Amino acid sequence: MTELAAVKAALKTQAVETPSWAYGNSGTRFKVFAQQGVPRTPQEKLDDAARVHEFTGVAPTVALHIPWDRVEDYAALAKHAQDRGVRLGAVNSNTFQDDDYRLGSICHPDAAVRRKAVDHLLECVDIMDATGSRDLKLWFADGTNYPGQDDIRSRQDRLAEGLAEVYERLGEGQRMLLEYKLFEPAFYTTDVPDWGTAYAHCLKLGDKAQVVVDTGHHAPGTNIEFIVATLLREGKLGGFDFNSRFYADDDLMVGAADPFQLFRIMYEVVRGGGFTSDVAFMLDQCHNIEAKIPAIIRSVMNVQEATAKALLVDRAALGEAQASGDVLGANAVLMDAYDTDVRPLLREVREEMGLDPEPLAAYRRSGWAERIVAERVGGEQAGWGA
Amino acid sequence: MTELAAVKAALKTQAVETPSWAYGNSGTRFKVFAQQGVPRTPQEKLDDAARVHEFTGVAPTVALHIPWDRVEDYAALAKHAQDRGVRLGAVNSNTFQDDDYRLGSICHPDAAVRRKAVDHLLECVDIMDATGSRDLKLWFADGTNYPGQDDIRSRQDRLAEGLAEVYERLGEGQRMLLEYKLFEPAFYTTDVPDWGTAYAHCLKLGDKAQVVVDTGHHAPGTNIEFIVATLLREGKLGGFDFNSRFYADDDLMVGAADPFQLFRIMYEVVRGGGFTSDVAFMLDQCHNIEAKIPAIIRSVMNVQEATAKALLVDRAALGEAQASGDVLGANAVLMDAYDTDVRPLLREVREEMGLDPEPLAAYRRSGWAERIVAERVGGEQAGWGA
Amino acid sequence: MTELAAVKAALKTQAVETPSWAYGNSGTRFKVFAQQGVPRTPQEKLDDAARVHEFTGVAPTVALHIPWDRVEDYAALAKHAQDRGVRLGAVNSNTFQDDDYRLGSICHPDAAVRRKAVDHLLECVDIMDATGSRDLKLWFADGTNYPGQDDIRSRQDRLAEGLAEVYERLGEGQRMLLEYKLFEPAFYTTDVPDWGTAYAHCLKLGDKAQVVVDTGHHAPGTNIEFIVATLLREGKLGGFDFNSRFYADDDLMVGAADPFQLFRIMYEVVRGGGFTSDVAFMLDQCHNIEAKIPAIIRSVMNVQEATAKALLVDRAALGEAQASGDVLGANAVLMDAYDTDVRPLLREVREEMGLDPEPLAAYRRSGWAERIVAERVGGEQAGWGA
Amino acid sequence: MTELAAVKAALKTQAVETPSWAYGNSGTRFKVFAQQGVPRTPQEKLDDAARVHEFTGVAPTVALHIPWDRVEDYAALAKHAQDRGVRLGAVNSNTFQDDDYRLGSICHPDAAVRRKAVDHLLECVDIMDATGSRDLKLWFADGTNYPGQDDIRSRQDRLAEGLAEVYERLGEGQRMLLEYKLFEPAFYTTDVPDWGTAYAHCLKLGDKAQVVVDTGHHAPGTNIEFIVATLLREGKLGGFDFNSRFYADDDLMVGAADPFQLFRIMYEVVRGGGFTSDVAFMLDQCHNIEAKIPAIIRSVMNVQEATAKALLVDRAALGEAQASGDVLGANAVLMDAYDTDVRPLLREVREEMGLDPEPLAAYRRSGWAERIVAERVGGEQAGWGA
Repeated sequence: MTELAAVKAALKTQAVETPSWAYGNSGTRFKVFAQQGVPRTPQEKLDDAARVHEFTGVAPTVALHIPWDRVEDYAALAKHAQDRGVRLGAVNSNTFQDDDYRLGSICHPDAAVRRKAVDHLLECVDIMDATGSRDLKLWFADGTNYPGQDDIRSRQDRLAEGLAEVYERLGEGQRMLLEYKLFEPAFYTTDVPDWGTAYAHCLKLGDKAQVVVDTGHHAPGTNIEFIVATLLREGKLGGFDFNSRFYADDDLMVGAADPFQLFRIMYEVVRGGGFTSDVAFMLDQCHNIEAKIPAIIRSVMNVQEATAKALLVDRAALGEAQASGDVLGANAVLMDAYDTDVRPLLREVREEMGLDPEPLAAYRRSGWAERIVAERVGGEQAGWGA
Repeated sequence: MTELAAVKAALKTQAVETPSWAYGNSGTRFKVFAQQGVPRTPQEKLDDAARVHEFTGVAPTVALHIPWDRVEDYAALAKHAQDRGVRLGAVNSNTFQDDDYRLGSICHPDAAVRRKAVDHLLECVDIMDATGSRDLKLWFADGTNYPGQDDIRSRQDRLAEGLAEVYERLGEGQRMLLEYKLFEPAFYTTDVPDWGTAYAHCLKLGDKAQVVVDTGHHAPGTNIEFIVATLLREGKLGGFDFNSRFYADDDLMVGAADPFQLFRIMYEVVRGGGFTSDVAFMLDQCHNIEAKIPAIIRSVMNVQEATAKALLVDRAALGEAQASGDVLGANAVLMDAYDTDVRPLLREVREEMGLDPEPLAAYRRSGWAERIVAERVGGEQAGWGA
Repeated sequence: MTELAAVKAALKTQAVETPSWAYGNSGTRFKVFAQQGVPRTPQEKLDDAARVHEFTGVAPTVALHIPWDRVEDYAALAKHAQDRGVRLGAVNSNTFQDDDYRLGSICHPDAAVRRKAVDHLLECVDIMDATGSRDLKLWFADGTNYPGQDDIRSRQDRLAEGLAEVYERLGEGQRMLLEYKLFEPAFYTTDVPDWGTAYAHCLKLGDKAQVVVDTGHHAPGTNIEFIVATLLREGKLGGFDFNSRFYADDDLMVGAADPFQLFRIMYEVVRGGGFTSDVAFMLDQCHNIEAKIPAIIRSVMNVQEATAKALLVDRAALGEAQASGDVLGANAVLMDAYDTDVRPLLREVREEMGLDPEPLAAYRRSGWAERIVAERVGGEQAGWGA
Repeated sequence: MTELAAVKAALKTQAVETPSWAYGNSGTRFKVFAQQGVPRTPQEKLDDAARVHEFTGVAPTVALHIPWDRVEDYAALAKHAQDRGVRLGAVNSNTFQDDDYRLGSICHPDAAVRRKAVDHLLECVDIMDATGSRDLKLWFADGTNYPGQDDIRSRQDRLAEGLAEVYERLGEGQRMLLEYKLFEPAFYTTDVPDWGTAYAHCLKLGDKAQVVVDTGHHAPGTNIEFIVATLLREGKLGGFDFNSRFYADDDLMVGAADPFQLFRIMYEVVRGGGFTSDVAFMLDQCHNIEAKIPAIIRSVMNVQEATAKALLVDRAALGEAQASGDVLGANAVLMDAYDTDVRPLLREVREEMGLDPEPLAAYRRSGWAERIVAERVGGEQAGWGA
């Protein structure tokens, strides 16, 4: 197989999971701008996600969020997905929208609230059993707003205890993916604020516990690809929540703010063997002002383009330049791949996959956008609180 | 008058404006935690604000937010305030919560939306006429989320045009306070992102246009007291929106995150003559998880303490050390004031003002908290969308 | 002229000024790593700069730094340059390396030190007269390290006074370019920390005073292209000091850290008419660990590539998408230009200019690198202190 | 023992290690301003450090830096210290100032350079054997400036290998303290950039490897006290390098930029048992423009004041408020301690220790400053390169 053929083959196997909630309404604390045609049910979210996969060919799974996607019959939901050509993916828990969680969930000072939070997480594993999902994705909004509000260390103890109970419940082949975030909604301490904290907890829990990197959850200046390389080296990179940001956790389309950074991240994934392992590539974005389905298609394409560039890096030449201390030469090898316009290559890949080479144009022609606006009338649109 | 007497006299004249919306519910994009006893009407907000003034003695005015505080009869609202010992303060506009404002208000590409936004601002001046308010406070959520989304420069042109129309409408003794903010809710460009932009616009508008500094609206590392000193030097500091933050626009209680910074800011105010001029000192905070009225009382006290310390700086000694290039000596003079425990002094000030020396304890004893929980049942609690 | 021909024509007229000091040694506070073949005299720096222009065709001028490039006979220096095909460019002052400047220069509390600093600036204008340089570039290291160390406002007064004296000295056709910087070497206040401060001073000085944007001198998260658009709109953008950074003022090669940002900046330059005006495009970088001449060639090429992409933006399509509020469409128009591989176009441009299409390869083949290592033996290598 | 007596007793046992290099000249990359009276030898640095201990009573040890403090006879150096009432403390390695280290030391692509670096570290352990020092403090300047320059993961492998060899060499009772730093002098990747990386390496090395927290080495917004609490909980906090910063690694006097943060850090130390354990409290500062010995005395006092406030926190009341979810109450308990003026208490403590209550005044009266200016004439002043 030629090198280019190998790159193409790799790109054809790529899988980017889209999140059910990105198809619903979202916004900032100032305003949620509702859009027409937004899904009203988990089933309709899957219908939209299926369109993304139909036109990109690399978005085969859909992440659920409980309780936003709570249904009576998860097997039926899985069937609904399957009928449309997609599968259910990671199950995301929610321990931040109940009034009880004002001061935290699994780290709350009150044992009763902690019990409730852990029970919810256990319920999520039950749902995973029903859906056949591999990954339980845990993001905790837990933290404090004011110095002294709660004891930093005690909260870590509570976190460790709660995680351990959930970990024990995981079945064969199931994983716990622990996400970290610098801040928001907590504004002084966050109980899992950085990769180090997530890593330390996962290490103690065991092999089924892995760290998930949300690309928008770091302090300014953080070198994310370094974290990716380190977690891969430690065997602890469980997956990504992709999005992009100029400021804080802006949740813009991945690749929109700093495409070079996305490329560098994907290069470390490729270099560290993450592309062919169990690392989960997920989107976690908010399309507050732009059309949601096209934005998600575009995001998937952005990940593809960054991946294609990463796969095109001439690693032999790079290694040689690095070994000889040729700073400019090594940088030039990397930049040569980045500067390449990979869109023609991806058009070829799509055609070889039997897809339209232009996913966005194909989606627009499909009439889906008009159809959902016409059909999804009445009911309550999905959103973060739905 | 001794120096201490002068400090006390200054502290007794201090006036911190509290915002009506801080008495209502607020939250993050993830969740608004409702609290018991929260006001349901502008009148009830004024009732709460009156308590803050009653116990602190230095919170005599209340900022309104239109449309959140829209009433039929503003004169009656002013009377309601007056009957409770407070007055109506700045009028804050809102051009970010209507569906039309998805892509901006006064900077929107569509002239019709801009017209609507400017009309709202003009309405706010009408309200100022009715309430006798001096200040129109303008914060624009306008901006873009994606590179290319709109033309940066054209948006500035539109901004200038809209502001000019509103400026013309201002009456004698009325002012326009233009606020800047680095980001949020816009995540790529914000149309008034920094003091320089606000200053440039105000300069062209004229003397009635002034810059307002929200202490939470800067990039990491920004030296806020430098901006304060500069704006005072330029005669362009209109006022403050006080709050504090560890990360972004966290809107925590002022002085809670970095009390030394608040002190440095107040020192520049004192040094630059801002304390005895028309600079408006306002709070703009969100009490998402803590009890609102006590949090506002505490915030007012924090401003008092920082002011007291700033007033206590031995400026003669400071000037001497500065002039002689004594780095450590000059710093020590400033720190000596900061390290002073001014709470005893403020207790004295309050007693001399006929107040309880401990505002929070007095508030707690007053029974107000229990009363509003008992009485404010039913109706819709005030919040950002109310 | 077709559109592509117009783009090519524009690219052929581009001019990027390289700084004499970038050819000398530089480093961090921890270590300056000396390189072989580094110039020992201003003349040798010009010799190197001439190579950069020879191979790129778009680096016709060289910025001087006084006193590092102080010579007896500036006319002879200008002739030296001319003989090698380049010209002398902006004159950069230095008011930070004399022991007298420990607490500042033009803002120093001691009038004698201020006098010395202003005299140095006046001397720089004398040199401009001799070299025929248009621009006096002013960067002040002035500031304080500790709160209270000096009076923020008094320092502004001193700054204004000093600048006014120098401004008066400017001849016909000469300009003063005022640079701002967030921090370093001052670590608490910097006397010209942001574009607003530089702008306010330039506004008062007059038309010959303009702001210079160093791309590495901003707080994290600052939107630089917004500043560029604003300064162009105000007629106050004098020029750029290009470099790139991941953290602070890292002074890496321009385009190395965030090529998308450089493209966005160049787009605003093109959109705002800055590309065909008097805006000066200068490099200001430190090649601490990489070979200097190739790094500078690469930097010039990076600016060219970003400019080419900016010129390729389909502005009609962009304007249409923006006007119609098509967020994704407008973003896609911009990204389409950015994603284009412009290296083939630039190879064509170079060939049409009679240059080798691959400047770095041509430089390597020229033997210059080996020659300077062989010839520049003995003497004292140029560096920041030379 | 009353509570206050316990606080006093704790304060009397406090030990803050001062670094030999802080007594020498330092600066920024722009300029090192030499000061009069600066030590010229390791012995003279110890003489100065002895003054700091003499007047504060809590600075009994002095950190060495190799090769800056290299001597023929370390036993004699230890004796020199002992004769002046102080002891030799941690040994700091230097793998960043040799020309060989341009591309790194222990992580360098070339095995020969790595060998040299490891040999230097082993030499440092030899010196520890001679001086009786407990701690080897390792800070690596290793990293890269450009994407692609070297392989992130391979550098981690080299780091692990080098550390393991040094770890094996440690004797009974000796420790390895691994410091992390976000950036500088490397500007793209740093090989030990965050606590997570340092922690992961220390975990694999064993109990003698511990993390050291330099308070200036974090990304903007990082919650340092959270890291302190976490490392204490993990049993992996080896010590502190204290200093303060407004921007990057400014190396200002500890407590000068954010005294509230220093208090919060010290509170976590107290709460986590770090104050009575083997945690090393060291200064690592640069007194670029201020007098060095008084600055160090002031820094030691700042640590004392923060510690005193931390010890004064009413932990019973705090715990109660935290357990009951009283956000404002818990915060108030913490703030009550912080707002206390502890200078009178510390004056008492000093008097009970037989010291002058005002260390800076006593130092000034001692005539030491004048004496060293008079006596230390000729020779080469100590500095980072000495």
